[in-house]
Amino acid sequence: MYKINDNYLKLPGSYLFSTIGKKVAAYKEANPDRDVISLGIGDVTLPLAPAIISAMHSAVDEMANAETFHGYAPDLGYEFLRKAIVDNDYKARGVDIALDEIFISDGAKSDSGNIVDIFSQDNTIAVTDPVYPVYVDSNAMSGKTGEYLKDKECWSNVIYMPCVAENNFIPDIPDKTPDIIYICCPNNPTGTTLNKEALQKWVDYANEKKAVIIYDAAYEAYISEPDVPHSIFECDGAKTCAIEMRSFSKNAGFTGTRLGFTVIPKELKCGDVSVNSLWARRHGTKFNGAPYIIQRAGEAVYSDAGKTQTREQISYYMKNAKNIREGLADMGYTVFGGVNAPYIWLQTPEGMKSWEFFDLLLEEANVVGTPGSGFGPSGEGYFRLTAFGSAENTVKALDRIKNL
Amino acid sequence: MYKINDNYLKLPGSYLFSTIGKKVAAYKEANPDRDVISLGIGDVTLPLAPAIISAMHSAVDEMANAETFHGYAPDLGYEFLRKAIVDNDYKARGVDIALDEIFISDGAKSDSGNIVDIFSQDNTIAVTDPVYPVYVDSNAMSGKTGEYLKDKECWSNVIYMPCVAENNFIPDIPDKTPDIIYICCPNNPTGTTLNKEALQKWVDYANEKKAVIIYDAAYEAYISEPDVPHSIFECDGAKTCAIEMRSFSKNAGFTGTRLGFTVIPKELKCGDVSVNSLWARRHGTKFNGAPYIIQRAGEAVYSDAGKTQTREQISYYMKNAKNIREGLADMGYTVFGGVNAPYIWLQTPEGMKSWEFFDLLLEEANVVGTPGSGFGPSGEGYFRLTAFGSAENTVKALDRIKNL
Repeated sequence: MYKINDNYLKLPGSYLFSTIGKKVAAYKEANPDRDVISLGIGDVTLPLAPAIISAMHSAVDEMANAETFHGYAPDLGYEFLRKAIVDNDYKARGVDIALDEIFISDGAKSDSGNIVDIFSQDNTIAVTDPVYPVYVDSNAMSGKTGEYLKDKECWSNVIYMPCVAENNFIPDIPDKTPDIIYICCPNNPTGTTLNKEALQKWVDYANEKKAVIIYDAAYEAYISEPDVPHSIFECDGAKTCAIEMRSFSKNAGFTGTRLGFTVIPKELKCGDVSVNSLWARRHGTKFNGAPYIIQRAGEAVYSDAGKTQTREQISYYMKNAKNIREGLADMGYTVFGGVNAPYIWLQTPEGMKSWEFFDLLLEEANVVGTPGSGFGPSGEGYFRLTAFGSAENTVKALDRIKNL
Repeated sequence: MYKINDNYLKLPGSYLFSTIGKKVAAYKEANPDRDVISLGIGDVTLPLAPAIISAMHSAVDEMANAETFHGYAPDLGYEFLRKAIVDNDYKARGVDIALDEIFISDGAKSDSGNIVDIFSQDNTIAVTDPVYPVYVDSNAMSGKTGEYLKDKECWSNVIYMPCVAENNFIPDIPDKTPDIIYICCPNNPTGTTLNKEALQKWVDYANEKKAVIIYDAAYEAYISEPDVPHSIFECDGAKTCAIEMRSFSKNAGFTGTRLGFTVIPKELKCGDVSVNSLWARRHGTKFNGAPYIIQRAGEAVYSDAGKTQTREQISYYMKNAKNIREGLADMGYTVFGGVNAPYIWLQTPEGMKSWEFFDLLLEEANVVGTPGSGFGPSGEGYFRLTAFGSAENTVKALDRIKNL
């Protein structure tokens, strides 16, 4: 008789954004006349940039002719894309990454979920609290997190590193030593970040403890301050302790286009075993590449026109971020983030619970945000708004919140 | 100190097609003047059909405007695509499948590799031998296959069901009872298939033993004989014991476009637990949908024009299959498959080892095939050729083999 993976049964509730999606759908069905504005899930609203559209049309045309048709892609992804990444994301910042240290994928969510495959069950992970749910859930699914303690809303074998206003959302080195450390920087959901000195401290710590850092840099394009690293590999010694994940979702609007990549330096070794080789084996066995058309779209992000156009989009969103930050502050809210990230993290008014504030905002202002407690116990009493709405909707949403 | 998943270290050698790719690349580099024809990896050569190209151009244009732009897709995939699948692949064959029993993905390789996630380590799998390597490798990676026995070239905790000329490549019910049974039908690599009676026997057996069948129907479009089921759900009782995987790679040339889906009926339960819900949870947590543009391409496969055009492509490949079958038979080879599948499975001449024949073909005929032993111990002495080459190259390859 077949047996299911019981770890799935330990998971509390459904994936956060699925829950929110269902709540919003139910509200809309009951109130079809209401115009609901979503500043909830981190989904972009601007269309793909012209350079990207043009590259995709060309690639589609290539697929229409036998001479230029593309079947299975190379295991690691097309070299044209990996080369553009090496040159623009790394060489340009003084970081030397080899072509075969880059693995093209269908997105950072898949990579950050799948990376658990190559690590033993016998690892203790450390995560910031609040945290992007995929890190914890994927480890829970693969049996690395112990038992879920309902009363404490946390897992018995996860080291939570509280990030709250009191420590400026910068995680402290934990008392217990972790094996795998997840750092998302600029941070989702808090919108805060680590400067180079703070990140170097984590790299040094990981090397000392022989821990591995899974560094999610999905929001690096939003960094505006000069002392914030764009890649963990800007830190000394990071190649022996870090895996970096990147996404095209937020820098180029690929949430529905799907493209990302993971960088695993060959220096990253567990004893004699190259972690790069393990991931290569997983990638080659359980994945078959991102679509050719989408890889060409990714390449176009790095063209001169693509860079200019996507930079304009980021400015557009960061103007929204500024409006939300300043607008909410004017209303008396305590707000964080939004300077190096498209997320604004606010304290709920009058000590409201995060989900209470979610319901209030949905029902009274018809604005969707994300309850902080959905990201972890230390997120209770906080709330995330994203800068990815249209400028018009963002202003409208602020007006509605003002009139609450 | 972090620990890697040691199961990866038990894997013998690299993924089969990566090994072949490297061998061919090395040969080409050493012999740049040779024109190597690949009938090896099952990659298509015909361009995407006009209806698909046109749908993709339209979808790209939609992504260029804020009003029609698409961000994150629904967890299960767009309803327009799931509806086309329900209507064309199931309802049209008298099979009732609900929209939320279909999960759109980036391809059957990903799905067949990832499905292991939702099953406990404590399961014994049964596979045909020879077999598509992903089934075994993905189970090995997740610790379900015991130890690799080098001398026997097999895993200690896998039930191998030999499929050889002597049993017409139809697996016998094994002596030991499996928990999870992989059936690929029409079969990769042998090109043979099961008729409805033979498949019904497996469904009845699985229900009796409370085993689950993972049914890979990636090649269903190549079925030409009327008594061969296109879906396992054409068999009575399959909904309580089977998961079906489908691909757009071979019926519509999507090897480099990436799209597939998995069907998990809600009746499939392990005790009280719905397997559909488990997969929904994995899908929602560790995957973020196939690209909108590609899902529109998939929808176009089911349009009237798409159906006509892809049917012509399949006829083209099946003419290749016929040429290979008949050509090799005329040369005195013993050949199987190629009637309901794009694969021809031949016995190597004079008892040659599969990899010896691979080297001979590569070096003397400059033709790439796939060694049968790469698919399992019972594949030794066999060799796979695919019908996915161009008609011209297929004929040329046959001439070269004739002149060996």
